[in-house]
Amino acid sequence: MEKEEEERDAEAGEEAEVNPWEVSGKIDYDKLIDKFGCQRLDQSLIDRVHRLTGRPPHVFLRRGVFFAHRDFNEILDAYERGDKFYLYTGRGPSSEALHLGHLVPFMFTKYLQDAFKVPLVIQLTDDEKCMWKTLSVEESQRLARENAKDIIACGFDVTRTFIFSDFDYVGGAFYKNMVRVAKCVTYNKVVGIFGFTGEDHIGKVSFPPVQAVPSFPSSFPHLFSGKENLRCLIPCAIDQDPYFRMTRDVAPRIGYHKPALIESSFFPALQGDTGKMSASDPNSAIYVTDTPKEIKDKINRYAFTGGQDTKEKQMLYGANLEVDIPVKYLSFFLDDDAELDYIKQEYGSGRMLTFDVKKQLIEVLTELVERHKRARAAVTDEMVDAFMAVRPLPSMFS
Amino acid sequence: MEKEEEERDAEAGEEAEVNPWEVSGKIDYDKLIDKFGCQRLDQSLIDRVHRLTGRPPHVFLRRGVFFAHRDFNEILDAYERGDKFYLYTGRGPSSEALHLGHLVPFMFTKYLQDAFKVPLVIQLTDDEKCMWKTLSVEESQRLARENAKDIIACGFDVTRTFIFSDFDYVGGAFYKNMVRVAKCVTYNKVVGIFGFTGEDHIGKVSFPPVQAVPSFPSSFPHLFSGKENLRCLIPCAIDQDPYFRMTRDVAPRIGYHKPALIESSFFPALQGDTGKMSASDPNSAIYVTDTPKEIKDKINRYAFTGGQDTKEKQMLYGANLEVDIPVKYLSFFLDDDAELDYIKQEYGSGRMLTFDVKKQLIEVLTELVERHKRARAAVTDEMVDAFMAVRPLPSMFS
Repeated sequence: MEKEEEERDAEAGEEAEVNPWEVSGKIDYDKLIDKFGCQRLDQSLIDRVHRLTGRPPHVFLRRGVFFAHRDFNEILDAYERGDKFYLYTGRGPSSEALHLGHLVPFMFTKYLQDAFKVPLVIQLTDDEKCMWKTLSVEESQRLARENAKDIIACGFDVTRTFIFSDFDYVGGAFYKNMVRVAKCVTYNKVVGIFGFTGEDHIGKVSFPPVQAVPSFPSSFPHLFSGKENLRCLIPCAIDQDPYFRMTRDVAPRIGYHKPALIESSFFPALQGDTGKMSASDPNSAIYVTDTPKEIKDKINRYAFTGGQDTKEKQMLYGANLEVDIPVKYLSFFLDDDAELDYIKQEYGSGRMLTFDVKKQLIEVLTELVERHKRARAAVTDEMVDAFMAVRPLPSMFS
Repeated sequence: MEKEEEERDAEAGEEAEVNPWEVSGKIDYDKLIDKFGCQRLDQSLIDRVHRLTGRPPHVFLRRGVFFAHRDFNEILDAYERGDKFYLYTGRGPSSEALHLGHLVPFMFTKYLQDAFKVPLVIQLTDDEKCMWKTLSVEESQRLARENAKDIIACGFDVTRTFIFSDFDYVGGAFYKNMVRVAKCVTYNKVVGIFGFTGEDHIGKVSFPPVQAVPSFPSSFPHLFSGKENLRCLIPCAIDQDPYFRMTRDVAPRIGYHKPALIESSFFPALQGDTGKMSASDPNSAIYVTDTPKEIKDKINRYAFTGGQDTKEKQMLYGANLEVDIPVKYLSFFLDDDAELDYIKQEYGSGRMLTFDVKKQLIEVLTELVERHKRARAAVTDEMVDAFMAVRPLPSMFS
């Protein structure tokens, strides 16, 4: 589902580009909300989540990482009336190792699953990666299974989670929904949404319905038979919005609910906040396979800082928090609001030095990555099989 | 697989149109061979079939109904060396009742299956019909099953025949091959082959790989596991050639054999030989559900004749056999070469009247249709299930 851009061209002043295959330029998220026509996720919605779930909102909600939505309020209205929903997220398995940005939607989805006690489907688009990259069917499938282990390591509940790869699962009710969707979307329409050209292969043109139909419960008869009216909530990065604009356009025409969305901004590259991280530059990201030394070196060498060149200047002027990557990274992964506020205040005013902020970030990320590695090492092939088995989920809404 | 044209515009002098969705105009089959780049099925090939199978060639071979091919000689070369092949044909289930033209490829395929003792896969493209027509998924599936009964009534051997509907069978190894094919075909390419426009829906653009991949044995692991090198021979009407031009172009790029083809001309409409029969005009065709009275009335009223207006003129000038539909129909379905020659000689020279030729045709077709009805009535749901079961074929090459 999530795509790494091939190239990132971050020259100042350039118009930002956000689509499922490219995220580049300095992104103005307010403008993006207007351009895409989604809604802002405001404080009243966050308070409502707090009230309905009886849990403090996730750090990604409190800090505005998930900042936009489509009909999330309707999901909450229904939930308040006692109607449950299901979650749908996914990943395009194009690489062996995930970086921290890849973890963001999964960490958030796990929180939603735990907080609302709802079932979850996770799509691994191995077919998409096979078609967009120079990957064989077999290699795409292998990567899907490897990525499934990283996803499982995020702590999902096997009794209410179904992970599937398209190469395994496309067919039957799922394929019928693909055809129903495809009938409703013209070629001109997908060109308008995704920017395909005549020289693109027809696999690309065929793919949008594959990502669309997990939004419909009838695509999963082994999970939702008799529950075809269940609503769907999709947590994802906002570059996936085009797929679901298309899906929401088609849904009522084929008698289905529109899926709701809750959408995140991008996790910035170490070099600065100009889009998503680049898979082509390993030094632009922290990977979940990095050693403590690699994490330390990458942050010390490459993390773009808003602090001043010298201790003296820093104490005089303070750091520019708006562009400072260590502070941005801490705002994703340092859970303690008071501690983060303290750092921002001290660092911004010059009483704290860049070195100390980076040191704190290295600690936080090393702990996160080491914890992930331990969790992943504990994921057995049997566990992967259990998550990917086509069978009813033992516990759905309890 | 086979398509009924929406409209047939047979004005004299108009350029003939032959593609999977439209067959119109007066077709020059010689020109079509040149235009499509296939090969003529000549007498030496027919003699070779006779020699290799030890059976007289089918009437459709002797009379040039199947008149073109691609690499059929290579299939025979391999067969002569002891290498078997499999047959692949299909039908787009767009209507309840089949007409005689629909039976042609199935009658011929049955002959090939019996003569060469090879396995056969029959694709029912219910997904295609759902996408091209205003048919629901469920109605397309129902028609596929109804059509399967007519196909089974043609006498196929259940121990070496697998019939499948796309809505049932797409997935797994079949879907992987769809993706492999789709990666190799650009949108511009399918526009060139099939004439799609930007206002066509993406279901149409996605479909060609679905019809392509039954050409590859690896799409049927339950039949051909361990026999991935088996060659494929496709008997079909020549309007399906564009699908398999595309398939043959792609095959070597993904490591597969090109399928071979053996291609028929179209069964003419009662009103005259200007293309395929039209589903929109029930009086243009004899259906396998027609009563003896309907057959008699249709032939007497609508069959275009090359005979003269009056008995006197007929005896003087004779009939123009080139345009005479009763003679053409007899050349499809009257097996006795001597009898057909006699009719053509007597009728062409004026010693036989149109009435008598039509009478003979009515007898031949009534017998054919009544036999089909009896065979179809004997097809049980259990038999359909047996033909459509995903399991190894009891007898493949014996």
